[in-house]
Amino acid sequence: MSIVWFNGALVEDRVTIDPADRGLTLGDGLFETIAVHNSRAIWLDEHVQRMEHAADELGIGFDEVSLRTGVAEILHKCTFVSAVLRITLTRGVVDSRALTGSGAIPSLLVTLTEFNGANPSAISLATSSIRRNETSPSSRMKTLSYIDNILAAREVMQRADDALMLNMAGHVACATIGNLFLLKGDQLITPRADQGILCGIARAKFLPRAREAIVTIADLHAADAVFRTNSLRLVTQVTKLDDRPLGLRSLDDIKHFITERIAP
Amino acid sequence: MSIVWFNGALVEDRVTIDPADRGLTLGDGLFETIAVHNSRAIWLDEHVQRMEHAADELGIGFDEVSLRTGVAEILHKCTFVSAVLRITLTRGVVDSRALTGSGAIPSLLVTLTEFNGANPSAISLATSSIRRNETSPSSRMKTLSYIDNILAAREVMQRADDALMLNMAGHVACATIGNLFLLKGDQLITPRADQGILCGIARAKFLPRAREAIVTIADLHAADAVFRTNSLRLVTQVTKLDDRPLGLRSLDDIKHFITERIAP
Repeated sequence: MSIVWFNGALVEDRVTIDPADRGLTLGDGLFETIAVHNSRAIWLDEHVQRMEHAADELGIGFDEVSLRTGVAEILHKCTFVSAVLRITLTRGVVDSRALTGSGAIPSLLVTLTEFNGANPSAISLATSSIRRNETSPSSRMKTLSYIDNILAAREVMQRADDALMLNMAGHVACATIGNLFLLKGDQLITPRADQGILCGIARAKFLPRAREAIVTIADLHAADAVFRTNSLRLVTQVTKLDDRPLGLRSLDDIKHFITERIAP
Repeated sequence: MSIVWFNGALVEDRVTIDPADRGLTLGDGLFETIAVHNSRAIWLDEHVQRMEHAADELGIGFDEVSLRTGVAEILHKCTFVSAVLRITLTRGVVDSRALTGSGAIPSLLVTLTEFNGANPSAISLATSSIRRNETSPSSRMKTLSYIDNILAAREVMQRADDALMLNMAGHVACATIGNLFLLKGDQLITPRADQGILCGIARAKFLPRAREAIVTIADLHAADAVFRTNSLRLVTQVTKLDDRPLGLRSLDDIKHFITERIAP
């Protein structure tokens, strides 16, 4: 069951869209997924700002008033204890067949879906052969063109819970649905923003106490603990990489740290 | 004006779609664009086969009977002299939030749009900083996740008609909307299938008389002529690369060769 808002109004469970909308035809758009607890959208401002910055870079119109209205109308209808709010912004229909076509009126879709909350406490990773493409600005945006993450997740699904994605230089980038951190002594380390990663909102919460660096697979194996961050799933310990156990230092203090950052 | 067929029936100018359809939410699907002249779809079988192979690789259900039915119903309504047939196949709605979610009923969209036929006889290229990601199988499929081609085209739009995309090794891959060939003496050369390219249907028509190779930017500058192939635009000469003139040998024999291959 979902609650759906599309281009200005709550709608039934389907959306009626132009078949030439570039979100549908070319993955030409952006999205955010946001945790909702007791009708409160967690870190909403940060998600909205990230979408706005990426929309500017893509040249997609961004109407914050409309977006905020859609979110408010959806949350007003929310009866779920835990839910996922998803905001999808597409370029809309452009004025020519060209990839550079412009003049579009963007489409804005907001959905709210119940979240069963069955987050695993620990996951395994396996290294994907598919690299993150840090030569593209899209590697740093949450665009609708998500096929490489899907392919990477599918590639490893028989042997691990998520894929480790390296960048073109062979350095650690991220998982398919989250950023990676490692604990080494009293240091908290995460791949740098230029390493082909989407800079996650949960990741940003740790940055004040973390160091950004170039991270290698060897660094992960040598760490005291490795974890994945994600706005919905928060902190999940990674206990295995390519079937080799990783450091298992407790993450209780880490989890406490991020839980505190979900502002009351 | 378009004619639209969606999931089994001709519809008005809008489609009604589940907001969780992965084609809309994650660029998780495939498309083909096919030239139509006098209600005849050019190289239809080749396009359908390419989509089927990619759907198999992505694990997306492919129903050729339904697809052929949609195409036939659309073409039956066609009153355009020249048109573009687009087939879009999405994974549909999957059974979980996971990227690896399955159990979906695919969505199939077929549209026909008049083509004004204003193909340029020559174009310029400028080299994009965005590389093709040959580590991903998606570089060899026509997926809905098209954002890198869009970004590359937008990057050069003030200084050229299309972008030259290199692969991660720095070798020539393709343009954003077509494959590249070069003429050198009596040799016809095109980047190899493993160079991060989508193997175009028009490209395939030249392969019997071409050699696949690793191609460099220097090779393009040293060629007697460079051209781009595309199923809709067929053969277009490239006269400039990064503001430097390229070889200008006539392509009349080339154009004649491919026109003959549009089987009567």
